[in-house]
Amino acid sequence: MFHDVRMRGFKRRADVDEVVAWVDALPVVEATASVPLADARGRVLATALVSGVDVPAFARAAMDGWALQGEDTFGAGETDPLTLTVVGTSLPGAPHDGVVGRGQAIRIMTGAPVPAGADTVLRAEDGRQEGDQLSVRAPSAIGRHVGQPGEDIHAGTTVLPAGRVLRPQDLGVASSIGQGALVVHERPRVLVLVTGDELVPPGTMPDASCIADANGPTLRALIERDGGRAEIRYVPDEADALRAALEGAEADTVFVTGGSSVGEEDHAPRLLHELGTLAFHGVGLRPAAPAGMGLLGTRAAFLLPGNPVSCLCAYDLFAGRHVRRLGGRVAASPYVRAHGTLTRKIASVLGRVDYVRVRLTAGRVDPVMTSGASILSSTTEADGYVLVPRDHEGWREGSEVEVFLYDALRS
Amino acid sequence: MFHDVRMRGFKRRADVDEVVAWVDALPVVEATASVPLADARGRVLATALVSGVDVPAFARAAMDGWALQGEDTFGAGETDPLTLTVVGTSLPGAPHDGVVGRGQAIRIMTGAPVPAGADTVLRAEDGRQEGDQLSVRAPSAIGRHVGQPGEDIHAGTTVLPAGRVLRPQDLGVASSIGQGALVVHERPRVLVLVTGDELVPPGTMPDASCIADANGPTLRALIERDGGRAEIRYVPDEADALRAALEGAEADTVFVTGGSSVGEEDHAPRLLHELGTLAFHGVGLRPAAPAGMGLLGTRAAFLLPGNPVSCLCAYDLFAGRHVRRLGGRVAASPYVRAHGTLTRKIASVLGRVDYVRVRLTAGRVDPVMTSGASILSSTTEADGYVLVPRDHEGWREGSEVEVFLYDALRS
Repeated sequence: MFHDVRMRGFKRRADVDEVVAWVDALPVVEATASVPLADARGRVLATALVSGVDVPAFARAAMDGWALQGEDTFGAGETDPLTLTVVGTSLPGAPHDGVVGRGQAIRIMTGAPVPAGADTVLRAEDGRQEGDQLSVRAPSAIGRHVGQPGEDIHAGTTVLPAGRVLRPQDLGVASSIGQGALVVHERPRVLVLVTGDELVPPGTMPDASCIADANGPTLRALIERDGGRAEIRYVPDEADALRAALEGAEADTVFVTGGSSVGEEDHAPRLLHELGTLAFHGVGLRPAAPAGMGLLGTRAAFLLPGNPVSCLCAYDLFAGRHVRRLGGRVAASPYVRAHGTLTRKIASVLGRVDYVRVRLTAGRVDPVMTSGASILSSTTEADGYVLVPRDHEGWREGSEVEVFLYDALRS
Repeated sequence: MFHDVRMRGFKRRADVDEVVAWVDALPVVEATASVPLADARGRVLATALVSGVDVPAFARAAMDGWALQGEDTFGAGETDPLTLTVVGTSLPGAPHDGVVGRGQAIRIMTGAPVPAGADTVLRAEDGRQEGDQLSVRAPSAIGRHVGQPGEDIHAGTTVLPAGRVLRPQDLGVASSIGQGALVVHERPRVLVLVTGDELVPPGTMPDASCIADANGPTLRALIERDGGRAEIRYVPDEADALRAALEGAEADTVFVTGGSSVGEEDHAPRLLHELGTLAFHGVGLRPAAPAGMGLLGTRAAFLLPGNPVSCLCAYDLFAGRHVRRLGGRVAASPYVRAHGTLTRKIASVLGRVDYVRVRLTAGRVDPVMTSGASILSSTTEADGYVLVPRDHEGWREGSEVEVFLYDALRS
């Protein structure tokens, strides 16, 4: 196994921007699904939603009172009331079917259809009814307290654009135009092949030679957050096992964690080159330099470093963009950004992007001190990260920086 | 039904702040559940998670190379190499059991346990192995490329605080300390009683006298977003039906939509007064003035106006706080806030809070023009809302205002 040890650095490290451009140009096949409103929150609308109906479809009373012809009330006052005859009732869901003529009124409740012939609703406090006689104590202008058909939504109106990440109130609007389900982008399937013979699966206690896998649970949650479905599979550190898993992959994109570097046991880059195309291997990004990406047929494959922070970093900057695009979402990072002032300098080098975990407290940005890429707890202590661009050698204490917040997300 | 029509305004409108303080003081009974990591994203950790183990539990190679005693490499150089004997191999998950003595080395891969006796890892590029002879071309300081036990997490460390809304990487950390499941706050159950005889349920086309319910789908999604479970039930506009539904409610809190105002068909306030306590009825808030809240036994009940915008507003300001608290979350609005400049004035009146839907484009805040509380599409066109405080008569064009963003959420 060790007879031809060839340890080298990467021949060339790709720029982060170059990789991002490649990811964002990957082909995306669109698949859709119809989901009931109850399951549609956070899903992505596949096609614009156009109303086929007016909402409301009828003239609607906006107050409790009497529907009548406004002209019959003109001149009425507290001291010189006018009298009309009440000929019926319109309740919500139980309209009055007749036509309201001159001298007539019908009792009406908020939300009920204003019957034909009536053009206004006299408020309850402006009339007094005894038997079928209504004493009108104030005028009611034509159109007053009547919600017109289409007042909320006109037939033909686009109520939600394609690509909309559905909010709670969007589901209400969809319901109001008669939709019980919506056509949304299908959730992309992501197959995650976790390699590393030192790993035991989640729920297993780590021991004297093994560590419990952190990348599977983290990636599953990231993928689901970004609208995908994750299948996590543990694969032995053997080229044949990984080859078989890659060849048999049924998914919209494949991630491999671990074995992504240039060591002899780093099978993933060699196999991706053999089975498809290794577009990039090695990125000018700390702590995710040993990342790679390429194509397996028409599907993208992402080689994510096994170190948990590196893996998260490579997901945040590259793989996550593709998951989001596959599901019809915008590629850009979902993390909301905030600004703050650095409490300590951050060192970097020209030509490399640094992903630096930070705390953010009252506008003060405090880098989380860590000794390496394996320290996943640095990302749970942190409130977010800052990126040092490749043309910067770092930032001085006191610099104003932008923080990507782990716990605030844009849809 | 109409023989004793008594239409009045509210005797007194409660202040928004007063209602918020009441909501935030409601008793909350804590219930917990154990959920597998795969289902734990976004759930709220019930108790602090303390590690029972060091992670890693063993000294770990951080590079491929050879584990050995650093002293054996001191003085080695490209032109005057030192020679050691390779006595074994340590692979990830397959450690070398022996002790490494003076003059000895063992081949080691990244992630494998550093065997007893060894105190450093010589990088692969600093040695050359032929047969069992290792030619050392550079010194390797003691401790170099060795990840110490507990380097990521020390046993006894609190890795996640109680109340944490679980992020993807939190699940990785939990896994790494051997946890396959986490104890989280139970999702509060919310029973939503939708009233309004003019309503037909979602999935039904509105017609000449009925409108399709928007509040049920909206509230379900809001409640689920805030960590609750919603049961939506449609109840006829009859006091007895609503009384029975309230009396039989099995939930942690109950919402009633519609019939919350002061009309004769507004049964909800009267029934809440009869069956429990009506703490507030009528709020100085546009467009959610006809809101109420109180207690049914020990559980809070929220009377939400039937107009969809009013309903959303009353949820955003009051009912949602309680759902979040019941599930162990912070009460405050989850909407991320942004700032911008008003493009048009907003009129309000002293003593009333206004919930104004706005668009936000490149720092410009544009109120969505609407004619009333029934216009739910105003909230789908909007990017968020601004609140005009009760001690303001509105804001002038050009004012700097804070926008609560519908599509950016804090966890």
